[in-house]
Amino acid sequence: MTEWGAGGWIAANASYEAGGQQLPDVVNAACSFIFAAHNYSASVYPMLTRGAAHLITEFGSEELKTNYVPKMFAGQWQGTMALTEPQAGSSLADITTHAEPTGKNYYKLRGQKIFISAGDHDGVDNIVHLMLARIKGAPDGVKGISLFVVPKNRVQEDGSLVFNDVNTAGVYHKMGYKGCPITQLSLGEEGDCRGYLVGEPNKGLFYMFQMMNEARVEVGIGAASIASAAYYASLEYAEERPQGRNLASKDPRQAPVMIIEHPDVKRMLLFQRAVVEGALSLLLQCAQYADLKKVAEPAEREKFSGLLDLLTPVAKSYPSEMGIMSVSQGLQILGGYGYCDEFPLEQHYRDIRIHPIHEGTTGIQGLDLLGRKVVINGGQNLIFYQGEVQKVIDACSQHSELEPYAQKLSDIIADLISLTRHLVLIKDRPEYFLADATLYLELFGIIAVAWQWLQQGLEAWKALKADPNKSDAQFYEGKIVTMKYFFHYELPKTKGLFERLQERDGLTVKIGQAVFMD
Amino acid sequence: MTEWGAGGWIAANASYEAGGQQLPDVVNAACSFIFAAHNYSASVYPMLTRGAAHLITEFGSEELKTNYVPKMFAGQWQGTMALTEPQAGSSLADITTHAEPTGKNYYKLRGQKIFISAGDHDGVDNIVHLMLARIKGAPDGVKGISLFVVPKNRVQEDGSLVFNDVNTAGVYHKMGYKGCPITQLSLGEEGDCRGYLVGEPNKGLFYMFQMMNEARVEVGIGAASIASAAYYASLEYAEERPQGRNLASKDPRQAPVMIIEHPDVKRMLLFQRAVVEGALSLLLQCAQYADLKKVAEPAEREKFSGLLDLLTPVAKSYPSEMGIMSVSQGLQILGGYGYCDEFPLEQHYRDIRIHPIHEGTTGIQGLDLLGRKVVINGGQNLIFYQGEVQKVIDACSQHSELEPYAQKLSDIIADLISLTRHLVLIKDRPEYFLADATLYLELFGIIAVAWQWLQQGLEAWKALKADPNKSDAQFYEGKIVTMKYFFHYELPKTKGLFERLQERDGLTVKIGQAVFMD
Repeated sequence: MTEWGAGGWIAANASYEAGGQQLPDVVNAACSFIFAAHNYSASVYPMLTRGAAHLITEFGSEELKTNYVPKMFAGQWQGTMALTEPQAGSSLADITTHAEPTGKNYYKLRGQKIFISAGDHDGVDNIVHLMLARIKGAPDGVKGISLFVVPKNRVQEDGSLVFNDVNTAGVYHKMGYKGCPITQLSLGEEGDCRGYLVGEPNKGLFYMFQMMNEARVEVGIGAASIASAAYYASLEYAEERPQGRNLASKDPRQAPVMIIEHPDVKRMLLFQRAVVEGALSLLLQCAQYADLKKVAEPAEREKFSGLLDLLTPVAKSYPSEMGIMSVSQGLQILGGYGYCDEFPLEQHYRDIRIHPIHEGTTGIQGLDLLGRKVVINGGQNLIFYQGEVQKVIDACSQHSELEPYAQKLSDIIADLISLTRHLVLIKDRPEYFLADATLYLELFGIIAVAWQWLQQGLEAWKALKADPNKSDAQFYEGKIVTMKYFFHYELPKTKGLFERLQERDGLTVKIGQAVFMD
Repeated sequence: MTEWGAGGWIAANASYEAGGQQLPDVVNAACSFIFAAHNYSASVYPMLTRGAAHLITEFGSEELKTNYVPKMFAGQWQGTMALTEPQAGSSLADITTHAEPTGKNYYKLRGQKIFISAGDHDGVDNIVHLMLARIKGAPDGVKGISLFVVPKNRVQEDGSLVFNDVNTAGVYHKMGYKGCPITQLSLGEEGDCRGYLVGEPNKGLFYMFQMMNEARVEVGIGAASIASAAYYASLEYAEERPQGRNLASKDPRQAPVMIIEHPDVKRMLLFQRAVVEGALSLLLQCAQYADLKKVAEPAEREKFSGLLDLLTPVAKSYPSEMGIMSVSQGLQILGGYGYCDEFPLEQHYRDIRIHPIHEGTTGIQGLDLLGRKVVINGGQNLIFYQGEVQKVIDACSQHSELEPYAQKLSDIIADLISLTRHLVLIKDRPEYFLADATLYLELFGIIAVAWQWLQQGLEAWKALKADPNKSDAQFYEGKIVTMKYFFHYELPKTKGLFERLQERDGLTVKIGQAVFMD
């Protein structure tokens, strides 16, 4: 952690005033991708610290900023986000961790938090939890949740640290992602756990959503990065492993070919590459919207903010869900070796499975997309999005090789808009409206990544026209082939999703628990 | 193992003459399913022993039968299948393990075998490898492979055992399926490894395919059984875990509901059940064909044999591939707990990942289905299959509730046949013909399981008309709902596969390795 801090990586995208380098989010996201591809677990420590420090910087008091942020940016102290409780995972409304006012500048906290990533470790001198809790007498549900800084060791007036009654009650034994401890915390066992309110009471969830939205994009980056590492590992294996012969000439006296020559292996590699580079592209697009949202003219800010809001659940879920499939195909390329720990694939396969779970499950992302992001402001976000996609379609329509793909995307975006209108008609019956929100998210993700691939295809096509050197030309041709792969193999998956989503029969709403008795 | 043997389970489906109970395969398969659902690793020991013993019984000499089979059926000795070598996994043509004739009743073997399941352990007194090797001077490729019994300890004339120079060179460290050791074997390090020829020279692969075909169906059973255990574990959790509220009334003062009440959770449970019980049904159908093949009138045997041949790659792959997805959804239902070892899901997730790999990868099954099983005898197997499916469609067409589903299946079978005809036209360009064989297998699998669900729906519908008691009625209604789930959520996935398979553009054939350079 001190290395991350000393290198300036934790504060990299913070403002100069906050001690950062004002690195654009899009560059920062690319750096996160590289770090996470090398070692996902290791990348989580600075990522969480950065998010927690940003939250204090944005909403905290001067005292909190002075006492905590510099040490966090320096990598001397770890930051976390502490939301989940044993009875409150997806349902944050049910948080019960209790904050008692003391009349001083702190509250006394009592409660349990679970699944806290990097919640305790020896690599730092202190842990700073950004924690949700309920102030005594606060309203029920999400409207009564406040945000606190709850350090493991609190800073006293003289600057020294004293233990703050934040106890590590346990460490979870996970399937993968083992380089980062996930802890259970017990707060105030001795009645001396102090929490410092961030911003105003009862607005905690609103503040926390800043960190959660950043973290959701970071989860997407983490998933894409693991899938990327897996892609290169399986590509290397496919290039070096002799096995079998060309199907057209199976003469056993011929030497075996490298397995990368088999069409089915090329298909698996293209699938991996299409997912990895398509997901990365979507993630960088989101980071760019985050940058533009900050620097654009006020009139344009609403647009970039809306685009980022709309695409965040997609950029979290597509890399997570499809990343799993992609790593699994990579493992498959190695056959039996893929299943053994001599090669890295089996670890990637275990590591990446966390991503559809943490920072809001895929089901929660689906509800967020269809139930909130698509419908707020009369569907304005979707109109912004349609405009962005249309720009790429228009730019392709003059190029004969790309035009058929642009046409496909154009048709499918029109189908998506009309499906959405069709669904929104039953918005007043939310269980029916949202029953297949997860499938809607899946559909939306495939289309968004098709948009990104068309954009990449367009850039590659332009670059090829500009007479590149041989190695660059290879790279751009690879991009165009992968784009074609995506449109021919992945985009057709939307067909079945459209069919189901148009049905609206409420099959899963109407049935009771008795259906599962046998 | 001795418990399995003493209970009669290893020999259960062998003939009376061979020391078995002549249990029908369909009953035996159901028993295998139950054992494997309890502990997949444990179920592999008797399964392999049974397959190896059957092979000796069917093709071995009297001496081999007398010396080895009784101990194997008794569970005192372990059986294995020893095919794979470091340079020969999917490509058995490249086996180099060497068998030197001695002029006596044995050959001297030298070579390396890898990934040998249950290849050495302390639970038995001896290990009997059914091993592929190449007799000195044999033809190249698969036509020069012979089958040998190669025991770890060989039986001497006086019945005593002596070490046979079969050395365990290593044990693989696998991601899951850890209850069964997968070993590397080194044969003849001291020049004293004796192998006993089974049947005739150079016919080894033909003999071995009997065991492999049995083992492929067993792999399907193993996958379905793990997915079944995962289904029941996640169902139990969903019934007991309170979280969130009905989307129509999110009042935080109401008590949370059990998560099984959320439509998205019901959808995930239905998916699991549809995969598990659909896969099991297909596997039992195969086992029934195996029975009928033995007892049917000679004129009908060809039909049942052809159906079993055709469906074996499907019955191996669908449970394996979809079982992974199904376990993954089960894990997802548990959220963060699903990723931790306090609950069984994370183990199921690791365990089931072996199934698309061993006994022929999914890619190999795709080539087997489209490149061999569908095309041999002028496509006769597919005609038999179409007849079987039509029988169920016809039986449903009088029942108004089932008729629309029967119609869907009828349409899709017609599409499958016409797609197959379309593909077979390019059979003389095998790389183009087989480029998407894996996708064809996936398509074939979804349709085959839809057939099985319609059959289950029909039986449930009949049973409901017969005024069952309340608990039986619940069971049958659950079957009908799951059938509907399959037709509304799973069958539409064929749409995208049909679209891609009709394109036939050879995208993955034409590209070279350079596409992947960047």
